[in-house]
Amino acid sequence: MGLKEQCGIFGFYNNDDFDAAEMIYYGLFALQHRGQESCGIAVNDNGKIIYYKEMGLVPEVFNEVILSHLKGHMGIGHVRYSTSGDSLRENAQPLVVKYTQGSMAVAHNGNILNYNELRADFEKLGFIFQSETDSEVIAAMFSRQRISSGSLQEAISKVMRVLRGAYSILVLSRSKLIAARDPMGMRPLVLGRKNNSYAVCSETSALNAIGAEFLRDVRPGEIIIINKKGLRSIQTYTPEKSALCIFEHIYFARLDSVMDGACIYESRYKAGEMLAREYKIQADAVIGVPDSGIASALGYSNFSKIPYVEGLIKNRYVGRTFIQPRQQTREQSVTVKLGAIASQVRGKDIIMIDDSIVRGTTSSKIVQMIKNAGARKVHLLVSSPPVKFPCYFGINISNKEQLMANNMALDEMRKLIGADSLGFLSIKGLTEIPNGSKSGFCKACFDGHYPMEIKS
Amino acid sequence: MGLKEQCGIFGFYNNDDFDAAEMIYYGLFALQHRGQESCGIAVNDNGKIIYYKEMGLVPEVFNEVILSHLKGHMGIGHVRYSTSGDSLRENAQPLVVKYTQGSMAVAHNGNILNYNELRADFEKLGFIFQSETDSEVIAAMFSRQRISSGSLQEAISKVMRVLRGAYSILVLSRSKLIAARDPMGMRPLVLGRKNNSYAVCSETSALNAIGAEFLRDVRPGEIIIINKKGLRSIQTYTPEKSALCIFEHIYFARLDSVMDGACIYESRYKAGEMLAREYKIQADAVIGVPDSGIASALGYSNFSKIPYVEGLIKNRYVGRTFIQPRQQTREQSVTVKLGAIASQVRGKDIIMIDDSIVRGTTSSKIVQMIKNAGARKVHLLVSSPPVKFPCYFGINISNKEQLMANNMALDEMRKLIGADSLGFLSIKGLTEIPNGSKSGFCKACFDGHYPMEIKS
Amino acid sequence: MGLKEQCGIFGFYNNDDFDAAEMIYYGLFALQHRGQESCGIAVNDNGKIIYYKEMGLVPEVFNEVILSHLKGHMGIGHVRYSTSGDSLRENAQPLVVKYTQGSMAVAHNGNILNYNELRADFEKLGFIFQSETDSEVIAAMFSRQRISSGSLQEAISKVMRVLRGAYSILVLSRSKLIAARDPMGMRPLVLGRKNNSYAVCSETSALNAIGAEFLRDVRPGEIIIINKKGLRSIQTYTPEKSALCIFEHIYFARLDSVMDGACIYESRYKAGEMLAREYKIQADAVIGVPDSGIASALGYSNFSKIPYVEGLIKNRYVGRTFIQPRQQTREQSVTVKLGAIASQVRGKDIIMIDDSIVRGTTSSKIVQMIKNAGARKVHLLVSSPPVKFPCYFGINISNKEQLMANNMALDEMRKLIGADSLGFLSIKGLTEIPNGSKSGFCKACFDGHYPMEIKS
Amino acid sequence: MGLKEQCGIFGFYNNDDFDAAEMIYYGLFALQHRGQESCGIAVNDNGKIIYYKEMGLVPEVFNEVILSHLKGHMGIGHVRYSTSGDSLRENAQPLVVKYTQGSMAVAHNGNILNYNELRADFEKLGFIFQSETDSEVIAAMFSRQRISSGSLQEAISKVMRVLRGAYSILVLSRSKLIAARDPMGMRPLVLGRKNNSYAVCSETSALNAIGAEFLRDVRPGEIIIINKKGLRSIQTYTPEKSALCIFEHIYFARLDSVMDGACIYESRYKAGEMLAREYKIQADAVIGVPDSGIASALGYSNFSKIPYVEGLIKNRYVGRTFIQPRQQTREQSVTVKLGAIASQVRGKDIIMIDDSIVRGTTSSKIVQMIKNAGARKVHLLVSSPPVKFPCYFGINISNKEQLMANNMALDEMRKLIGADSLGFLSIKGLTEIPNGSKSGFCKACFDGHYPMEIKS
Repeated sequence: MGLKEQCGIFGFYNNDDFDAAEMIYYGLFALQHRGQESCGIAVNDNGKIIYYKEMGLVPEVFNEVILSHLKGHMGIGHVRYSTSGDSLRENAQPLVVKYTQGSMAVAHNGNILNYNELRADFEKLGFIFQSETDSEVIAAMFSRQRISSGSLQEAISKVMRVLRGAYSILVLSRSKLIAARDPMGMRPLVLGRKNNSYAVCSETSALNAIGAEFLRDVRPGEIIIINKKGLRSIQTYTPEKSALCIFEHIYFARLDSVMDGACIYESRYKAGEMLAREYKIQADAVIGVPDSGIASALGYSNFSKIPYVEGLIKNRYVGRTFIQPRQQTREQSVTVKLGAIASQVRGKDIIMIDDSIVRGTTSSKIVQMIKNAGARKVHLLVSSPPVKFPCYFGINISNKEQLMANNMALDEMRKLIGADSLGFLSIKGLTEIPNGSKSGFCKACFDGHYPMEIKS
Repeated sequence: MGLKEQCGIFGFYNNDDFDAAEMIYYGLFALQHRGQESCGIAVNDNGKIIYYKEMGLVPEVFNEVILSHLKGHMGIGHVRYSTSGDSLRENAQPLVVKYTQGSMAVAHNGNILNYNELRADFEKLGFIFQSETDSEVIAAMFSRQRISSGSLQEAISKVMRVLRGAYSILVLSRSKLIAARDPMGMRPLVLGRKNNSYAVCSETSALNAIGAEFLRDVRPGEIIIINKKGLRSIQTYTPEKSALCIFEHIYFARLDSVMDGACIYESRYKAGEMLAREYKIQADAVIGVPDSGIASALGYSNFSKIPYVEGLIKNRYVGRTFIQPRQQTREQSVTVKLGAIASQVRGKDIIMIDDSIVRGTTSSKIVQMIKNAGARKVHLLVSSPPVKFPCYFGINISNKEQLMANNMALDEMRKLIGADSLGFLSIKGLTEIPNGSKSGFCKACFDGHYPMEIKS
Repeated sequence: MGLKEQCGIFGFYNNDDFDAAEMIYYGLFALQHRGQESCGIAVNDNGKIIYYKEMGLVPEVFNEVILSHLKGHMGIGHVRYSTSGDSLRENAQPLVVKYTQGSMAVAHNGNILNYNELRADFEKLGFIFQSETDSEVIAAMFSRQRISSGSLQEAISKVMRVLRGAYSILVLSRSKLIAARDPMGMRPLVLGRKNNSYAVCSETSALNAIGAEFLRDVRPGEIIIINKKGLRSIQTYTPEKSALCIFEHIYFARLDSVMDGACIYESRYKAGEMLAREYKIQADAVIGVPDSGIASALGYSNFSKIPYVEGLIKNRYVGRTFIQPRQQTREQSVTVKLGAIASQVRGKDIIMIDDSIVRGTTSSKIVQMIKNAGARKVHLLVSSPPVKFPCYFGINISNKEQLMANNMALDEMRKLIGADSLGFLSIKGLTEIPNGSKSGFCKACFDGHYPMEIKS
Repeated sequence: MGLKEQCGIFGFYNNDDFDAAEMIYYGLFALQHRGQESCGIAVNDNGKIIYYKEMGLVPEVFNEVILSHLKGHMGIGHVRYSTSGDSLRENAQPLVVKYTQGSMAVAHNGNILNYNELRADFEKLGFIFQSETDSEVIAAMFSRQRISSGSLQEAISKVMRVLRGAYSILVLSRSKLIAARDPMGMRPLVLGRKNNSYAVCSETSALNAIGAEFLRDVRPGEIIIINKKGLRSIQTYTPEKSALCIFEHIYFARLDSVMDGACIYESRYKAGEMLAREYKIQADAVIGVPDSGIASALGYSNFSKIPYVEGLIKNRYVGRTFIQPRQQTREQSVTVKLGAIASQVRGKDIIMIDDSIVRGTTSSKIVQMIKNAGARKVHLLVSSPPVKFPCYFGINISNKEQLMANNMALDEMRKLIGADSLGFLSIKGLTEIPNGSKSGFCKACFDGHYPMEIKS
C-alpha cells in the first residue's frame, strides 16, 4: 500500500465571473480539518495547467500574490493529511503531469489496495515514479488507458475497474473537470452549484463556505464530467452495497456536513444518546472532550437528563506545528492543548465522552486533569467501539500499539487510564447512529468485515 | 495615548531544573488569545539579557533552535494584540534596554492615560524613542527614577505614583524578576508556583498550561520581587476601590481562568442566566455564537429550560492571517469562519447569544446564515450592554462607527441586523455576573463612569 | 527540443572519510558560473536516495543543517542555468526517480536534439512527465532500457545510441555512481581523485576547489562506473571526430579550468593575440570588459605592445537577482554593474575587448561610459566571430534579435554601438585559440557546420 | 568604544522626478563592498519617516514591493560591515527615532572614541539605549542639543565639538537632509548632483552608479544642509590637518572611486610601482591576489618590466555567507575562493602582490596553491607596511593575533608563510601613493602616530 492519506479535495468550474482559484482557496480552508500537512491548487489557464503547492496550512501557503497568478476558469485543490515520516514536498497534490493529450492534474482522497501491484506492473514497463503517492500511479493509469480510449472519462472508467480500494478523485484536463467516486462510495464526494458554476468536493461544509448550493452526493461508481457544454454523468458498474467509512461520522468530517443524506452532527449526538442507553451511570454532569466529543456529550445529557456542562476547553491555536515538550515536562502535552474548568467539575461525579481511544495515554492525562481540577469520579465513555482490526483504506489506525491496547481487557484499560469506569459504544449502537443515510458503511476496523477481499 | 493594546504577559523564575524559556513558551501559547500580532521572550543569561521577538503566533515565531539559544534562569514573555495599521516589528515586546544599571527587559499589558504628557516631558530632556509603545516610556521612567532610587523596585514604586491608567508589568533585570499591577487592578496578574519555581502571568490558564499551582492574584498596587533570596512583596498605595476591566469576563480572558476570585466560565454562564431573566422568549432552541457565546447560551438554556443545541460551528483554523475575499464574495467572510448546522435549526425559532455587537455587520451575516439554514425566527441576545462610551484603558472599542451603531435606537439596530428581536444585557444584570470576585469593576464603556479622571 | 540548458554537474564517491555532500557542495560552488537558477544534491544513504534541491545560488540553498541531513557515501549535484520564463522548481536537478531497480538520481548538462520525438514515443506508451527537462526523458530511457539489460551501465550504453545531441550525465543508483559523456564530447566532463575517493564533474576548477587531483578527461562516448570495487570504463562507439563546444573556451568555462588538454585562460589570452594580429590599431591603452574580456586584453597588449590598463571594474556583488531599474533610469543597468576608472582612460584612445556581442545595447552603454570617463576614441574588438547560426545544443543564442544584429553590416553595428571602430575575431583566428586541445570543436553558431544532422 | 564599523552611507534629495528609494538602493549596491551584514533605507514621506532594514545584502533585503512602499522625496541608506559576534538586527541602520521635533533618521560610518563616556553620561540622566551602536548615542546627542539650539544643524554643529573620532553622518529630519564629516575628515564623504537633485555618499563610485555628477568632497568639519530651498554649507571648526584613513586607499574603497582628489586605482597602482622601487627581484612574472592586489601587480610590472600575468582567479560568487569547511577540509577555505591558473605560473619564479597580511594563514595557503600549480619560487610583496598598532577609529584590526604576527621578525613570518622572500611597502613609500590628494592621512596603524589623543 502507498502512504495512508486522509485528505480533502475541492474542484470548481466557473461559468459566471467568479475567480476559480479564490473559490478553491476558501473551499480548501473549509476542508483544512481533513489535512494539515500540505496543500495545493491547480488551474487551467486556456488549456495550460498552472499550479502551486507547498507544505503548510492553506492560509500559510497561499497569499494574494500567489492566488492572483492562478488564473483559470476551472481548477482543483487538495489538502493533505500529515502522516509521520512521510512529510515530503514531493507528495503534495494536485499532481500535474504531461501525457499524450497535454497536461492533466490529479487530486485524490483515499487509498488504493493494489497500489504495489499496479506500480510494479508499470515499473516493469519502464515507467519512472517521483513520489510515494497513489495519485502518481492513478495518473499513470489514466495516461496509459487514454491511449486506447476515446476520451479521458472513458479511460477513467476503465481504470476504475482495475483500481481496488477507497477513492474520490478530481481530474483537471485541457478542457474538462472530472470527478469520480469509488464504486463502494467509501470516501465522500458532493456536488454543488453557485449561480451557474459548479463545485465538487469532499464535504458540504466546503460548499457552504463558498456560498454554493448543495445539489447531491456523487454516487458510488459515478463519474461526473463538467465542461463548457455543462455537466454529464456516467455511472460505471456499482456493487451491491455501498460502504462509506463510518469514521467520517465519528471523527473525520466537519460537524456541519451532510454525507449521503446523514448529518454528521446528528450522528455524533445520536452516538451520545446510544451511549446513554447502553451505559446508565449516576453522575452530576456530562462533559465532552473537545472538539469531537461535545455533540455526543449533549446527546448523552439529553437522553440521561444529567446536565451537560463545559468542563474542558481547547486552546484555539492548537492544530499547528508545535514544539514537543522535553522529557521533564512531557505531562504538559495535554495541558497546553486543553484546560479544565474547575468550577464546573469540582466535587462532582463526571461522565466524560471522547470520540475514540488511541493509545490511552492522552485519555489518561485528561482524566487526571479533570481529577486535579476537583472531580470526585470520572467515567469515561467512548462514542465508538474499540478498534480491533487494521484499516486498509487510508485511515492511519493500523499501528500495532493501538491494536494491542484494544487487545487489553476492558478493566485493564480502565486502570491504565485511571478512570472510575470505562465504556465503549457497541457495534450495534454504532450501526444506528447515521440517521437517514442512503449509504451502507464500512465498519471493518471494529468488526473485521471488510467490504472487499484483502490480500496482505 | 499610545497604541491600544490588549496583551498577555508571562514571567518565570526557575529554582528547579526547568528551562525558563520553555515554560514561557508554553505560557505564552496559553495566552495566545490575548494577542496574535507578535510575541517575544527575553531571558537573563548570567546577568546578560538575550531575547527574540518577531511578528506572528507563538508556534510560528519560536522553534527548538531559537528556544535552545534562550538560556537563562529567569525570563519574561509577551504576546501582542493586533491593532490595524500599527503592526510594526518595532512595537513587539519585551522591550530590552540598556540603562545605568546594565540591561532591563520590560513587558506590559494595558494602557497609559498620560502617555503623551510623559513622553513629551522626556523629549524635552532630549530623550529619543524608537517605538510607539507605552513600554518604551515606562522603561525610560524606570531608568530615570532608578538614578535617585536605591533599587529598581523603589524606582518602579515611584513611577507607579505618576503613571495613570491600566497596566500589568513584568520587568527582568540583572538579578530580579519584578511584577507590578496598577493601583486599581484594571488588568489581571496572577502568581503561581511550580515546585520551587515561580510564575507570574496574565491568567491562571497559563499557570495550568505549565502545570503550576495558582498561589494568588497580584494585588492592585502591589509590586512583587523575585530573586535568588525568594519572593517579596511591596504594597504601594491603593485607592479606595479596584476596577478590573469587566470585558475580561465578557470576552478577553480564557474560559478556564479565574480572576480575582471569579471564574470566567461562570461569569459567561451567569450572563446567559441573567439574559434569560431579562428576556423571556418563546423559542425552540438556544444556540451560541462560538467561541464566547456558548457558555452564555448554556446558561440561558438552563434558566429558561429551552434546549441548548449547537447551531454554529467555527472553522478551527480561523485565527490566522487570512486573505480577505474580494468584492463579489464579501459575504463569504462569515461563511469561511462559521458553519451552520442545518439539522439543528431547521424549522425552529432560535435564540442566538453573542458576547457583544461591534458594527452589526457580522451579526447580520450570522443571522442570515441561520435563516438560510432553515430557522423560522432568530432572536439575538447579547451578553453585555451596548457599548456607548470610549475606552481609554486599552480596549480598541473607541472607533466612531461602533459608537454610532450604539447611538442607533434598538429597533433600528434590530432591522439592520435582520433579527426578529434584539436584546442586550442590562447594566444591572452585568453587575451581577462575576460571581465571588474580590475586585470591583470598570464598566465605563457601558455606563460612562470612569474609575479615574479622563482629560481628552 | 526541451529547455536550453548550460549547467554544471558534480559527482563524488567516497572511499575515505570525506563527507560526500560537503564535497559536492564545494564542487557546485566552484561551478556556480555555469548555472545560477537552481541547485541540488542527491546522496545515496545505504541504498536509499535522499536529496534536496531549490531555486537559488548554492550558498543560499544549502546550509549546515540541510547538508548534515544529506548523509551518504556517494552523491551527485547540479547547478542549473537560468533561462527566462522557465524558472520552475520542477525543473531543478538532480531528478530522483523510482524504477524497477529501486531509486535513481540523474543530473545532466547539455541538450538532446531528438527530445520531442523521444518524449512523444514515451507518451504514446502512456508515460507521464512532470517537468520540461531532458533529464526526465533520459531517466525514462534508462529505466525502460534497464528492463532488457543486465546492468544500468548496459542500459545507459544502449540509450547513448539513441540519444542525439550534447550531454554529460551523472547517474546515482543503489550501488553505483555512473558518468557518461556524449559520443562527440560536446560538453566537458573530467575525472579526479582525492586520496582514494573519486570526483567526476564539468570542470577541473571544481576538482581544484576540493583539493582533488585531475586524472583525465572523460572521453567522448565513454561511460565510467564507480562502485565499491573501484572504477571501470566502458567505451561506447566513438564517431570520427569530437566536437567540444567552442563557447566553453570563449565564455562558459572558468579561466582556471583545463578542458581536453587546453587551458581556458590561454585560449582567451590567445584570442587577444589573434585579434592583435588581425586588427592593428593605433591606441594608447587596451582594456578588457570584465570578467571574460580581461585575459584577451592582456593577450592583445602583449602582442601589440600597447599598454594594458584597468579601465572598467565590475561590482563584485553582481550575479544575483537584482531589481531592474525603472524606465527613467534604464541607462543605469550598466552603471550599477560596471564602473569606469576615469584616470586610466581620460584623454586616451582606447582598445576595448569584449568576449561577444549579444544585442549591442550593452556594448553601446559601455562604450558611452568609457567616453563619458574621458576617452578620446573607443575601438571595440570582440574575441569571437559574429554569431550567425542558431545553436541546437543548449546555448541560448538562438533568439532572433541577436541573429538579426549579426545580419547587420559591420559598419551599421559600429554606428549603433557608437564605437570608433569595431572588429570581430575571424573564424580562422578562432580555430587557433585552443592551444593543445586533444578535441575537435563545434563552431556551428559561427560557421553553420553542425557536427550532426539537424532536423528542424 | 562601541562596535567597530566600516560602513557605507548614501543620501538622496529629489528635486526632479526620481524615486529617492530607488536611487538609494542602487547607491547602496555600489557601496556593498563597505558592508555586507545588514542594510537599510529610510525615506521621508511628507514629514513622516518610514524605513526598512534587515540582515543581508542589498539585493537580498530589498525587492520591488518593499521599495515601492518607501515613498518619499528624500532619504538615507546604510550598509553595515559584519564584525563577528555582533551581528544583531538591532544594530542595523539607519536608526529612526522620535524626538522633540518629530522623527529623525541617522546613518553613520566611523567610530566614536569617547562613546563609552558619552553613553555613560546619558545613562546617568536616565536615558535608555536599545543597541550597541555609536549611532544611537549620536542620535541622543543631536536630540539633546536640539533643545537648546535653533535648528538641527546648530545641534549637530555643537555635537561635533564634543564627539571625538572618525565619522561621516547622514541625518534625515522632517524637512531636511543633513550630511556631516568629522573635523579631520577621517572617513570619506562626497557630494553629487543628478539633474537638480542631490546625492551625498561615501564614495564617488556610488555617484557613478546612479549617473550623478561628482560635485566635490564634503570638507572635514563641514555640515551640508539640503532642503527645499537648496543646499547650504556650514563649516564648523577645522583642526590644522586632515587625516583620511590611508586604508581607504589600500583596501576599503572601490577602485573607481576618487577620494579627496586622489584616485584609488592610481594609489594601488602606485603602491606596486613603489614596491618595485623598493624590492628589485629577479622573476618571470608578477601576479596579484584578487581583487585588491591586481592594480599593484600591474604597477609593479610596469616599473620592473617583469610581465604581468593572471595567476589567480576569484570565484565571483564569493562574498556571501558560506558554510565553513569542517576540520578535515580546512585547507579548502582558500581553494573554494581562489583558483590558480597553472599554465601561467608553471615553472616560473613568481612575484605575488597582496594588499595586506592579516594572520598569515591565508597568505600561506595561497603561496602553497601557487607552488602546487607549478611555480618554482614565490616572492610575496605586500602593498602596505606591517600593521603594528591598533586602530581606534573603526577598522577591525586591533585583535591581538594580528599584532602578534607583526611582532614576529620578517624572516619568521616568511617561513610561516612559506614564501621564498617577503617584503612590505615602507612607510615612506606608503606616504607617496595617494597621488594628488588634498587630504592628509591617518597612518597610525602603521606608525603609531594617532591624529588625536587616545585614552585607553
